[in-house]
Amino acid sequence: MASNYKVADYLLDRLAQVGIRHLFGVPGDFNLHFLDHVISHPVIQWMGCANELNAAYAADGYARVMPAAALLTTTGVGELSAINGIAGSFAEYLPIIHIVGTPALRSQKAGELLHHSFGDGDFNHFARMAKEVACAHTSLTAENAASEIDRLLVAALYQRRPVYLQLPSDVGEAELTSQSGVLALSQPMLSPTSLQAFIEAARQKLQSAHRVALLADFLADRFGARQALNHWLAEVNLPHSTLLMGKGLLDETHPMFIGTYAGAASDASVREYIEEADVLITVGVWFVDTITAGFSQHITQDNCIDVQPEQVRIGRQVFSQIPMLAAVNALHELCLSLQSEWQQPVIAHSMPALPCDNLLSQQAFWYHIQHFLRPDDIVVTDQGTSSFGAATLRLPSGCTFVAQSLWGSIGFSLPAAYGAQLAQPQRRVILLVGDGAAQLTIQELGSMLRDGLTPIIFLLNNHGYTVERAIHGPQQPYNDIAEWDWTQLPQALSVDKASLTCRVTQADELQQVLTQIENCQQLAFIEVMLPPMDMPELMINVAKSIQARNAAV
Amino acid sequence: MASNYKVADYLLDRLAQVGIRHLFGVPGDFNLHFLDHVISHPVIQWMGCANELNAAYAADGYARVMPAAALLTTTGVGELSAINGIAGSFAEYLPIIHIVGTPALRSQKAGELLHHSFGDGDFNHFARMAKEVACAHTSLTAENAASEIDRLLVAALYQRRPVYLQLPSDVGEAELTSQSGVLALSQPMLSPTSLQAFIEAARQKLQSAHRVALLADFLADRFGARQALNHWLAEVNLPHSTLLMGKGLLDETHPMFIGTYAGAASDASVREYIEEADVLITVGVWFVDTITAGFSQHITQDNCIDVQPEQVRIGRQVFSQIPMLAAVNALHELCLSLQSEWQQPVIAHSMPALPCDNLLSQQAFWYHIQHFLRPDDIVVTDQGTSSFGAATLRLPSGCTFVAQSLWGSIGFSLPAAYGAQLAQPQRRVILLVGDGAAQLTIQELGSMLRDGLTPIIFLLNNHGYTVERAIHGPQQPYNDIAEWDWTQLPQALSVDKASLTCRVTQADELQQVLTQIENCQQLAFIEVMLPPMDMPELMINVAKSIQARNAAV
Repeated sequence: MASNYKVADYLLDRLAQVGIRHLFGVPGDFNLHFLDHVISHPVIQWMGCANELNAAYAADGYARVMPAAALLTTTGVGELSAINGIAGSFAEYLPIIHIVGTPALRSQKAGELLHHSFGDGDFNHFARMAKEVACAHTSLTAENAASEIDRLLVAALYQRRPVYLQLPSDVGEAELTSQSGVLALSQPMLSPTSLQAFIEAARQKLQSAHRVALLADFLADRFGARQALNHWLAEVNLPHSTLLMGKGLLDETHPMFIGTYAGAASDASVREYIEEADVLITVGVWFVDTITAGFSQHITQDNCIDVQPEQVRIGRQVFSQIPMLAAVNALHELCLSLQSEWQQPVIAHSMPALPCDNLLSQQAFWYHIQHFLRPDDIVVTDQGTSSFGAATLRLPSGCTFVAQSLWGSIGFSLPAAYGAQLAQPQRRVILLVGDGAAQLTIQELGSMLRDGLTPIIFLLNNHGYTVERAIHGPQQPYNDIAEWDWTQLPQALSVDKASLTCRVTQADELQQVLTQIENCQQLAFIEVMLPPMDMPELMINVAKSIQARNAAV
Repeated sequence: MASNYKVADYLLDRLAQVGIRHLFGVPGDFNLHFLDHVISHPVIQWMGCANELNAAYAADGYARVMPAAALLTTTGVGELSAINGIAGSFAEYLPIIHIVGTPALRSQKAGELLHHSFGDGDFNHFARMAKEVACAHTSLTAENAASEIDRLLVAALYQRRPVYLQLPSDVGEAELTSQSGVLALSQPMLSPTSLQAFIEAARQKLQSAHRVALLADFLADRFGARQALNHWLAEVNLPHSTLLMGKGLLDETHPMFIGTYAGAASDASVREYIEEADVLITVGVWFVDTITAGFSQHITQDNCIDVQPEQVRIGRQVFSQIPMLAAVNALHELCLSLQSEWQQPVIAHSMPALPCDNLLSQQAFWYHIQHFLRPDDIVVTDQGTSSFGAATLRLPSGCTFVAQSLWGSIGFSLPAAYGAQLAQPQRRVILLVGDGAAQLTIQELGSMLRDGLTPIIFLLNNHGYTVERAIHGPQQPYNDIAEWDWTQLPQALSVDKASLTCRVTQADELQQVLTQIENCQQLAFIEVMLPPMDMPELMINVAKSIQARNAAV
């Protein structure tokens, strides 16, 4: 019987076919049989996490550098523990295949008084909750398994969002008659008429312009336009920028890359290029409060060509059924023929200065991190001083930057770095996380050590939730956290795995440590002592706007 | 303006009035203003936790020994992180007031592209999810605040379940014209006719009986029948028992307490008293799979008088509108007049034997714990070897026992012990938790140390998920966990708070440590090394039944 082909095998083969190599999660009573199939699968590797929220964050981090990710939990307790992580992937467009081991169908049908339920015989509570954070959902049966698995995978890959798949414990063991064939992925609809109309309107818009600029953001990454965008910018001299969520999407070593745009909190020159362009081309941009310092962008809709995943807008005119890639390619062609009419600005690039004292301030820290970065690094940040500070970095070519600015769930970054490092073991992962954030999800440091991973972790210790202090209550005790002895943690969370662990309190110590870990073959854990009220300028501006919006009218 | 009476003040005063003294949670962008009111409130104390799931578990543990508990999170990220904890409180009937700081109403109305949202302008996703795990829910406005707060508190206290209360950041600061008066709590409906009919039917049932027994469980605790039940059993000689979820509800030093009932996995004598009674009175009992070894109870409905929170059933006849307490008191009276006709068994009590070798086995461990317990201890266990092993303990008088057997979310116990210890600082809290479970929520050990609490923690280290090994895959790697150096953790998770920390590998070492911590004034953290496949007998039986039910037909 074990040699027969089961629903569980089909599901795992499909995951492997779409490029997934690891399955994150926590074992539970209703997914153990499925796990037997995982363990014996030739491609998919089981990555047990310390808890389900961490596993969901790890899957999210994995999906940011891979075609998709997969997560396995158990009914009720497991899936609900993970649901905030899935919600983040839903908000920020990451395809996660969330498999939930549920009770055997016959137990569900009988309405049994099972553990991990509310004892009310209703086994649909959790599916109703999950559908708010999934672009498709299903409960598998022996009969629908193959078609439903395919439907969900296609939906996740097409819509770039999580899907929710209940696998009753008996259904995973049901036999299938045939193995999986080729998975036919959906392609976005392209209307040639609409595209032609768009090209004509764009040509008119662009040929009368003198100052043209481009602003891209995270959806350009999610919907596969990264390469086409960089190709376009390599051939056309356009001043260009991203918002924080899209940082790393464009090659920041390009001479026309002007820095990260953040509305009124941007550098004056960045703001000028973006806001005073005659035509601003935006690709995959959402103006979220946290990355625009509270909607402080001054951008006139009439001046914009706005490319979204399935449509384009020029001024107020919408052109539907145009996939992002088709729009990007069309604009690239247009720009080639028109650019000679445009101003060709020379961008002045200033690098941050090294403070002349030896204080370990935010300024000194980011100065040294700037010089520590290498091409192709994966830089993972948490919501707070780490992401807002990192906004000013000029990334070397090929770097991936991770900031969860829309969902903004603190604690996300540590497990996300774990997932990203598993996905791309050949690349250097640099995690920048505050002490407040790290406390939420510290367990996965143990998983990194268990698996012999070698990320470089900077724990920014500023004694609490500095991002909240910036918003409100700088001296209030609710922004304090339990103080930990951080440098003891890597030892406590492993038994035999060595790490390079230290605490730095002066700028020159940091510099020495950075030299030391340059070619380190172990996990590095650097506790960086920073003043509690020392804040990156961008964060101060963002916090002010949030504070103003929270207050009573 | 600060001296005026705000919605936030009203809410906090109401919490204090129902007996809540602590508010658990994590600060977030949309609840900081409310936190100012918490900090300055004369009664309610802020207990910042390391993450929201832990905070929800802490609130649950608090509500198990207090009238109710309160939890504060921030919209989206915070509330969804906590939702599995709330679901556990919903399943197991604990009143939790879950307050969620949400964006200002005007931002919600404008559909702003805010962080902690999906950017789709729909701010009701999370309320739709929350209503699956709340007995009432609301979003406050300046106009509805006083009446809605009262409605939700009454619902939580009456139904013994969580309520969900959205507090937009601007609404908390809205002024109220009057302070809160007396909160009129709901009383369950009593139908005198129904009660009379029930008493007559019960009399007929009981007067023809020779063997009468009583089985109580968790709902008797939740719906306030503890005292009345123990009073009844002090006056009437009935063999009696609880299931594991209700353990501690009845005084286990009573000579007629026969031990914990667990269906076919019970001791033979327990099973006989319960299953072979002519009339079995059940009070607040749910026969959940995990506490009946997979529905292996052999109890004939026709022999039962089943008391539930609002109705009673005799055989197949239902008597509605009878509150539990009224039914218990009526049965108490009936028993007094009828008991002379019944058999008066003499219960033989055997205490577990001390193994003669020095191996630190489950048997030896529970033997020593049995002798370590004192009256009024609060014993908190996690789903796994710790709860199933503790099932055999005979608790001293006044002990509270915590096992989350229905919801069964591993990791629950450590934060729950934190909550219980805060609630009852004068009582000794003994936490029994496995290594697999402790990894999920270890952060709150730091909170215990920060707050100077002194629980006694036994970390049962059997190298992984032994409860899952019992169900399936005893040698499979998915039941392993990352190995930690547990005894380093109390030091790592604090900076200046001392604890008594040690690892024991032999039975005599355990015995010595138990003597040493008898009057310890510090937090005690004892890592108990146990064989990975050494399992309490009850757990083996429960696991077998789960395994059988998971497998394919």
